[in-house]
Amino acid sequence: MSNQDLADLIRNVPDFPLPGIMFKDITTLIGNGPAFKKVIDLLVERYRDQNITAVAGIESRGFIFGAPIALELGVGLVPVRKPGKLPAETYQIEYSLEYGTNKLEIHRDAFEPGARVLVIDDLLATGGTIAAASKLIEQAGGTVVELAFVVELGFLNGREKLAPYSVHSLIQY
Amino acid sequence: MSNQDLADLIRNVPDFPLPGIMFKDITTLIGNGPAFKKVIDLLVERYRDQNITAVAGIESRGFIFGAPIALELGVGLVPVRKPGKLPAETYQIEYSLEYGTNKLEIHRDAFEPGARVLVIDDLLATGGTIAAASKLIEQAGGTVVELAFVVELGFLNGREKLAPYSVHSLIQY
Repeated sequence: MSNQDLADLIRNVPDFPLPGIMFKDITTLIGNGPAFKKVIDLLVERYRDQNITAVAGIESRGFIFGAPIALELGVGLVPVRKPGKLPAETYQIEYSLEYGTNKLEIHRDAFEPGARVLVIDDLLATGGTIAAASKLIEQAGGTVVELAFVVELGFLNGREKLAPYSVHSLIQY
Repeated sequence: MSNQDLADLIRNVPDFPLPGIMFKDITTLIGNGPAFKKVIDLLVERYRDQNITAVAGIESRGFIFGAPIALELGVGLVPVRKPGKLPAETYQIEYSLEYGTNKLEIHRDAFEPGARVLVIDDLLATGGTIAAASKLIEQAGGTVVELAFVVELGFLNGREKLAPYSVHSLIQY
């Protein structure tokens, strides 16, 4: 199963969530057992020997890919969540979106000292969410090793905006 | 690692999300790589020979356990989500909570005909959310094989309210 086969399993949904936007729907990819496994295998292969000590998954589609990658790497999953979801003491960050602002939180005690963190989300668009998540991870004492995505919307130039973080994706548009 | 060892990794956070509630925080469990793996192994072992054809995960902590279980069983993950998150055509259900109502959605085309579905969430409390999710799964053509949880708050009697669905949990309080 090639990366193109995986790309073919992503459904294009027009005008979601807003008119004019072509949404990349990964539910048709993760709904296919062998394709979902291939996605995880490809990402795990890349990080197997990178001394990752934790995987951070961004709420909530990032959990779908981050959890199995963490398990395969033998490390824990740290959820980065919207406000009010994490019960213990958190760090919070507010960041700008095209329309308004958003907030993310991480538990203050999420990482062991010296943590080397792989950050996972399903899709890289403009990069605002993952940039904010990366700052939170650093505030909690983690070192960001790489930002990994299943899908990258290259025409939005998120990768450039995320420099100097290293960015990896399986499928590019 | 025993079920008691796993239970010991769940953090008790008092007064979250409301005063008087002792919240069972699974982030300290999934943050421990070997413990997280043990949880998944125990659940996968139970369902390995049950001819499961899809795993349904309930947004969003259900994704954290549902995704790796689906992968280990070699089947796809079907997300059951809050309204407005799934981009294609959905079925929606509204259900009552202690304070107000909630809604859940599932993609209409989530399942193949004859799907045998394992439903996963992190915690069974009163059972309202998982009962609504199960109805949605059936509306989309799936047969619910069992409802599986990492944690069960037995004193809330969710299991009784969910009859005749079969319920399984790893850790009971």
